[in-house]
Amino acid sequence: MNIAVDAMGGDNGPKVVVQGAIQACDEMGIDVTLVGDSEAISVAMKRDRERKRINIHHCDETVLMEESPMKALRNKRNSSIRVAFDLLKKGEADAVVSAGNSGATMAAGILILGKVEGVERPALACLMPGEKGSVILIDVGGNVDCRPIHLLQFGIMANAFATSCLGLSGPRVGLLSIGQEEGKGNEQVRLAYELLRDSPLNFIGNVEGQDVFSGRVEIVVCDGFVGNVVLKMSEGMAQAVTSILKDEMKGSLLGNALSLLGRRSFKRFEGTLDYAEYGGAPILGIKGVGIVCHGGSSARAIKNAVKLAVNYVENRLQERLSNEISGLQSGLARA
Amino acid sequence: MNIAVDAMGGDNGPKVVVQGAIQACDEMGIDVTLVGDSEAISVAMKRDRERKRINIHHCDETVLMEESPMKALRNKRNSSIRVAFDLLKKGEADAVVSAGNSGATMAAGILILGKVEGVERPALACLMPGEKGSVILIDVGGNVDCRPIHLLQFGIMANAFATSCLGLSGPRVGLLSIGQEEGKGNEQVRLAYELLRDSPLNFIGNVEGQDVFSGRVEIVVCDGFVGNVVLKMSEGMAQAVTSILKDEMKGSLLGNALSLLGRRSFKRFEGTLDYAEYGGAPILGIKGVGIVCHGGSSARAIKNAVKLAVNYVENRLQERLSNEISGLQSGLARA
Repeated sequence: MNIAVDAMGGDNGPKVVVQGAIQACDEMGIDVTLVGDSEAISVAMKRDRERKRINIHHCDETVLMEESPMKALRNKRNSSIRVAFDLLKKGEADAVVSAGNSGATMAAGILILGKVEGVERPALACLMPGEKGSVILIDVGGNVDCRPIHLLQFGIMANAFATSCLGLSGPRVGLLSIGQEEGKGNEQVRLAYELLRDSPLNFIGNVEGQDVFSGRVEIVVCDGFVGNVVLKMSEGMAQAVTSILKDEMKGSLLGNALSLLGRRSFKRFEGTLDYAEYGGAPILGIKGVGIVCHGGSSARAIKNAVKLAVNYVENRLQERLSNEISGLQSGLARA
Repeated sequence: MNIAVDAMGGDNGPKVVVQGAIQACDEMGIDVTLVGDSEAISVAMKRDRERKRINIHHCDETVLMEESPMKALRNKRNSSIRVAFDLLKKGEADAVVSAGNSGATMAAGILILGKVEGVERPALACLMPGEKGSVILIDVGGNVDCRPIHLLQFGIMANAFATSCLGLSGPRVGLLSIGQEEGKGNEQVRLAYELLRDSPLNFIGNVEGQDVFSGRVEIVVCDGFVGNVVLKMSEGMAQAVTSILKDEMKGSLLGNALSLLGRRSFKRFEGTLDYAEYGGAPILGIKGVGIVCHGGSSARAIKNAVKLAVNYVENRLQERLSNEISGLQSGLARA
């Protein structure tokens, strides 16, 4: 097993990405190909330069975080994101992990690997921590300005992902809106409601913002604009809550008790809300396994993303996803 | 000062609304007119039935939470929401507070009081708790399917609200998007960016989900669909966090220390995240003061909403808002 890791992606530079990849390599006993500027990678690797299971694949271009994805892919044919997917396409890698420009990662996956049959718009699915376990939020940034049919396809893909990779059976699907009743929401959502209602999915209707955490559903469907706002907001909220709580307890008798007794418990609490635990978001609907990580990923987040990629490859995510989708699509056609 | 309170609104029935209104009456020394079914109100008032400063204005219709706002207003001319605004229009009340169907409350305010000159779409502004104080989120549910010009107007109204009612000077305005760089976002947001950039507002560019709490800006502009999702999600997250934290600490030495020492501190923490503290969201851009409360409002939330209404009336919110808006609009016209 060989995972291609975009070494140039992420806000924290190659050092963090390389560290995470090395850790995953050690823990999983897999091969990693670090794609990017070989000099920068060598510097980041320090003493690990002569490691056996770590390969460096040099390329001299990098897509910047603020670049337009399509322009960057057109103009930078030798960029680390693109080259990583080229390796996967050629069979030299089994999956791609990138913490770089997420739009460009998504676009490179679609351009180079192609779309699964029946999928118009591949999407990013993210596992969110909830009160009763994880919730799949789809789409979290790939697709803005969606049509209703795309929201239906997001539901179908997430359902396939949940059943084939997470072992869920008949996961409940909710459509993110601003009221539970049919007819609530914007035009896109009102039309998507009808499509989801008439699909073979276990669609329970509209859900609201609070249901991203409540456990009412296992899958929350929304467009990539709303999903990205929700995802980043929940990260921000986790930080705000931790900071409010720390302030609140500082200086009090309780605060002192906390510092003496509670560091571990508090850390576990932070961990529940820490997206680094979840690694990254799989791109669903492309012909291969691609994982998009948060730009601000820590080494641990990168390590967990590589582990996730290994898990998806071992569970033949893409094959099972294709089967599920074509099965559901034909159910849809019959309906 | 007399505040008209829609006694039939809210998920918890007249009892909670009436309790909150009575509490506000006691604390502020103001008059309250409870609008709704006089029998149900009398039952809810119990021993307070003969109170001096509390009036009951009977009407026999109620807009249900799941009803279509426009249809309900057309068909139920004698509904508590509508009648409350009628009282304001006739000068028999100074402001309206409702925890009922928020779309219908908004629509009734617009229909009966009319819009402030220069405002195409009145909006709901909500104060969100943040790491560095409150953040105004606008719009939180009134307007789905907005055009870019509406987002600009939301920014202008929130700016007027912040300067005239909250005492802020040159509040920083951010546009909620999925990347900080110009050009990120959906079509609506990309076009609104240009309008906000060229306006006299202190526009700092796009902000992301995490900035609803980070303190980077005092005002976050978005359409009513996204705003409503964000609002309800942050409520859900506050609950999830509290529940995760309680679970995490249960049974441990720390947990025991917490129950012994920390109840008060923990309660203060919950309070920081409790929307009841903030009362309700003002409808900006109508000719009068209308406050929309959460459907699940507690008596304390209703009390705080009535207090907020009194504050806005005393500070002549509507007059100052009109002046600010016409001033900014003419600055816009010159630009």
